Amino acid sequence: MPNQRGENDMPRFKTSIALISGGLDSAVAAAIAKTESNQVVALSFNYNQRHKVELEAAMKIAERYAVKHVIVPLSLDFISNSALTSKDIAVPENRALDDMLSSIPVTYVPSRNIIFLSIATALADVENADAIYMGINAVDYSGYPDCRPEFVTSFQRMIDKSTRRGVAGASIAIKAPLVMLSKADIIKKGAELNVPFELTHSCYNPSDEGLACGLCDSCLIRRKGFQQAGVADPTRYANLQQ
Amino acid sequence: MPNQRGENDMPRFKTSIALISGGLDSAVAAAIAKTESNQVVALSFNYNQRHKVELEAAMKIAERYAVKHVIVPLSLDFISNSALTSKDIAVPENRALDDMLSSIPVTYVPSRNIIFLSIATALADVENADAIYMGINAVDYSGYPDCRPEFVTSFQRMIDKSTRRGVAGASIAIKAPLVMLSKADIIKKGAELNVPFELTHSCYNPSDEGLACGLCDSCLIRRKGFQQAGVADPTRYANLQQ
Repeated sequence: MPNQRGENDMPRFKTSIALISGGLDSAVAAAIAKTESNQVVALSFNYNQRHKVELEAAMKIAERYAVKHVIVPLSLDFISNSALTSKDIAVPENRALDDMLSSIPVTYVPSRNIIFLSIATALADVENADAIYMGINAVDYSGYPDCRPEFVTSFQRMIDKSTRRGVAGASIAIKAPLVMLSKADIIKKGAELNVPFELTHSCYNPSDEGLACGLCDSCLIRRKGFQQAGVADPTRYANLQQ
Repeated sequence: MPNQRGENDMPRFKTSIALISGGLDSAVAAAIAKTESNQVVALSFNYNQRHKVELEAAMKIAERYAVKHVIVPLSLDFISNSALTSKDIAVPENRALDDMLSSIPVTYVPSRNIIFLSIATALADVENADAIYMGINAVDYSGYPDCRPEFVTSFQRMIDKSTRRGVAGASIAIKAPLVMLSKADIIKKGAELNVPFELTHSCYNPSDEGLACGLCDSCLIRRKGFQQAGVADPTRYANLQQ
């Protein structure tokens, strides 16, 4: 059999780092990384996150994708002003989607993606990777400043000036393939790539059994996305009749 | 008594984060931060560094400066390709100063300053700080890509696009007041500001008792700096007749 793959189907990157949180978006971004790279190394963080079930989801996703998975412990306890790192701040519920975009919510963990991406560039150096994939999104999102295209382009410029590959004239390409997609389009893309949605976790405030609350910003955006995409939502919600 | 201070003497920043490693340069940068800010919060990292005596030095310096000191635990064990995070890689000794600049040495910890500065921007958000001071230097240094002015300016642009203060049109000023100074000039500046050099630690490869080796790149640069500045060197070296 001749190789039916054209040039456009060839992997563009030798090794890519894929940041996976256990959430839906990063699982789709990692699936895209797999199609565009010869090899993928998954990276997650154990930062004592409120929704630790996310990290367990990340481990299951990396296992399903059959990729090496590096988990970096990271203490973000000093970030006392975020609902995702401090148990003293409540996660908002049942907000209108428009309200989510009107101001930066208490679930914002300041500089979280900046920190995660910085550590990813260190792992890229160790693994000699030429790309980093992340699932950030600036359309159906919660208004976090480090989820926007401006973040990606300015971070790219910064590492081109200040990493071993960058100063050697090579680069580590920061890939955020979902940044301008709606949640519905992300879900459609994931369905095409057979992303195991049932393993992903989006809820900020899961029950002790790991069920999604169905009420936080992240659950609301996810539910609406599945509805709009016309894809069956495998999520088990604690507070909804299903 | 009238206030004799002119406008130029007034603190420019309300609250500054000062990254202190325990080394000489960051102690001088923090001393400058103190003169230019109403309040300073010191930030250090416990990353199981080879030269852990540095962290003890950082604690003594913060205590001497009488500033709040946040120490963030950080696992960089995954960075297996640096002599400062892996015990399997030897620290080079007795290199000529020119050789240090000819290539990136094995003591380079990839993206270390990018990671540290990213976490500092998170702390700046928590503390509502308007500046971050760091002691990086691109003159008498070891050729690390994230110690150069290009790093500072590109990091500044990145956080202006991707932090809470940045998108609000405010800024967190990244201050690297030593970046273009020679080691001798840094030491002269520190002497003016009564920096407790005897508390600072620069050696990459200290003895079990915490004495400086006198032979690694960092010791060689420090010793030469004190000699050129004409300032007495209080460092206790394990391998030198003094």
